[in-house]
Amino acid sequence: MTALSHPAAPGPAGTPRPRTGRPTMAQVAEAAGVSPKTVSRVINGEPGVVATTAERVERAIAQLGYRHNHAAASLARGRTQDTVGLVIEGIAGRFYAELASGVEEVARAHGQQLLIASSEENPDRERETILALASRQVGGIIVVPRSGDHRYLRTELRSGLAVVFADRPPQRIKADYALVDNVAGAREGVTHLLRQGHRRIAFIGNELAVATSADRLEGYRQAHRDAGVDVDPALVVLGPTDVPSTEAALTRLATLPDPATAAFTQNSRLTMGAWRAIKQLDRPVALVGFDDFDLADVIDPPVTVVAQDPVELGRRAMHLLLRRIAHHNARHHHDILPTRLVVRGSGEIPPPRR
Amino acid sequence: MTALSHPAAPGPAGTPRPRTGRPTMAQVAEAAGVSPKTVSRVINGEPGVVATTAERVERAIAQLGYRHNHAAASLARGRTQDTVGLVIEGIAGRFYAELASGVEEVARAHGQQLLIASSEENPDRERETILALASRQVGGIIVVPRSGDHRYLRTELRSGLAVVFADRPPQRIKADYALVDNVAGAREGVTHLLRQGHRRIAFIGNELAVATSADRLEGYRQAHRDAGVDVDPALVVLGPTDVPSTEAALTRLATLPDPATAAFTQNSRLTMGAWRAIKQLDRPVALVGFDDFDLADVIDPPVTVVAQDPVELGRRAMHLLLRRIAHHNARHHHDILPTRLVVRGSGEIPPPRR
Repeated sequence: MTALSHPAAPGPAGTPRPRTGRPTMAQVAEAAGVSPKTVSRVINGEPGVVATTAERVERAIAQLGYRHNHAAASLARGRTQDTVGLVIEGIAGRFYAELASGVEEVARAHGQQLLIASSEENPDRERETILALASRQVGGIIVVPRSGDHRYLRTELRSGLAVVFADRPPQRIKADYALVDNVAGAREGVTHLLRQGHRRIAFIGNELAVATSADRLEGYRQAHRDAGVDVDPALVVLGPTDVPSTEAALTRLATLPDPATAAFTQNSRLTMGAWRAIKQLDRPVALVGFDDFDLADVIDPPVTVVAQDPVELGRRAMHLLLRRIAHHNARHHHDILPTRLVVRGSGEIPPPRR
Repeated sequence: MTALSHPAAPGPAGTPRPRTGRPTMAQVAEAAGVSPKTVSRVINGEPGVVATTAERVERAIAQLGYRHNHAAASLARGRTQDTVGLVIEGIAGRFYAELASGVEEVARAHGQQLLIASSEENPDRERETILALASRQVGGIIVVPRSGDHRYLRTELRSGLAVVFADRPPQRIKADYALVDNVAGAREGVTHLLRQGHRRIAFIGNELAVATSADRLEGYRQAHRDAGVDVDPALVVLGPTDVPSTEAALTRLATLPDPATAAFTQNSRLTMGAWRAIKQLDRPVALVGFDDFDLADVIDPPVTVVAQDPVELGRRAMHLLLRRIAHHNARHHHDILPTRLVVRGSGEIPPPRR
């Protein structure tokens, strides 16, 4: 915690900081030999300041003991600049926890308090939650969207609310977003199974209303198309969201008259369910999962995954939000993060010989 | 959502409120004959302002028609009743995710929006975070505390803010809390190891400033006392917080001249670290961990744990908060949840024969 990032905080022992003789932004600018606008840019984490200049400004801030009052600066604009919101689908689960910790890391570095709220996987609640946060004067909001139409945000966007979408793109409005390359990731994972000789690969995913599901299924289809293999619709199961329902789905697919010999699962919870089902079967079924998880490397067989980096996704989304807060009218920016195939064993099991 | 509680929100038709002619905080300060910081303190309900000064500031605010982004509503008539806050130490980790989902489940059932904020494992940030939430007109706050002195909350409590502590008790103030019976749980887990014949049992935990650590260590000591076995201080390691540092600690303890033959770890992250270290050793070391985790039953050896129920802990804390919101002056209530020993294999490994 630096003095810079928490301008209004009392000192550690509860003593208020001195109020007199406070250095001004103009003095910082003078000491650093730059314009006040450049100082403001550095303080607000805005782009367009070269690193050496930023260092000079930071040194001047430290030397003078300057403390920027983010809140006062933004009163004129009607929103506080020291708090941002994050709306996620649900609290539980490693993916959201990691995404939130990435957002928080960057927020903290820029003196912003993060408030997290859940939309409870309910498109109507998404809207209510965003508007509730907006009405609490957050400076900006990162949304992991569930709904299929974000036009309800138009008024807020026009009124100056900064909104960035994470993990899934906005629908029917233009906005900044940071995503993982779901299509390419799924395509790589499924291609890996096809290369082991599998031709009956199950896809287990969530409902298609969620953009990541649709994209990962598209990757699965593309991999088949690339390999000249037809997709059997009977092997595509959409709907399981927890371990037991995924176990049941995989067991059924692996015991069809013409069974699945491999499976691609679209998130770590489904992967754990599929892994548990495979463990109970009397013959091996190959498995590649989207998203990594704790202990995936030490269970037997260890699980081959298409790893994504939710912490980095959160960081990128927060950087986009800071940029949007600083430049209300900037062009929209999209950040697409790559995935990485982690080969561990479960994805390299060959199909049975006929 | 009322206009009163969201003073700076744009009107229903999306028209931004006029920005000119608004009285400033400086004008309020001048009218009240105090510093702007004092005005800010009064507005944010911070301690350290004498009552007569606060009244003067409030009168000036009323006369000038000053509207502060945060707290005009709470000054005028109290707090909104449709939002509650949860302050946790950090976002990542299954324990907090589950606790939060329990809080949210009950909050939702009672029509309350939950806002979550992290104190980043920093006692100073805890205070700032709570006060930031309080200034955003939440009806009540659940805190998983990190600091060792909560007297800073007295003013807020007196002003009617409902506060409930979860997982760890409040320090130096009286308040409602919901905890897990950490002493009894640790005692049961360590007694289980002693019953297998172990006499050299390592304890790996966090720093003692965290109440749960101190309580779990106390349970470890009690189990030894019950069994008439002396605790060897060399086997008690406090500090590791992640997998690699726990791996290193366990490896060192298990390779002492008089080595540990068993270990008790105080949370699931430490348990995973210890398990990984044991896997690399050339002789088995028994392991019991506090808190359950995904896949603990399928790794080899499967891990015996003292299971707690963070979801239920969250539910109980939220029920206490609802009760406190409804009955500001009710007697304080404490909810202590039991733990459950789950026997799976790692805790039943006997000590080596000498």
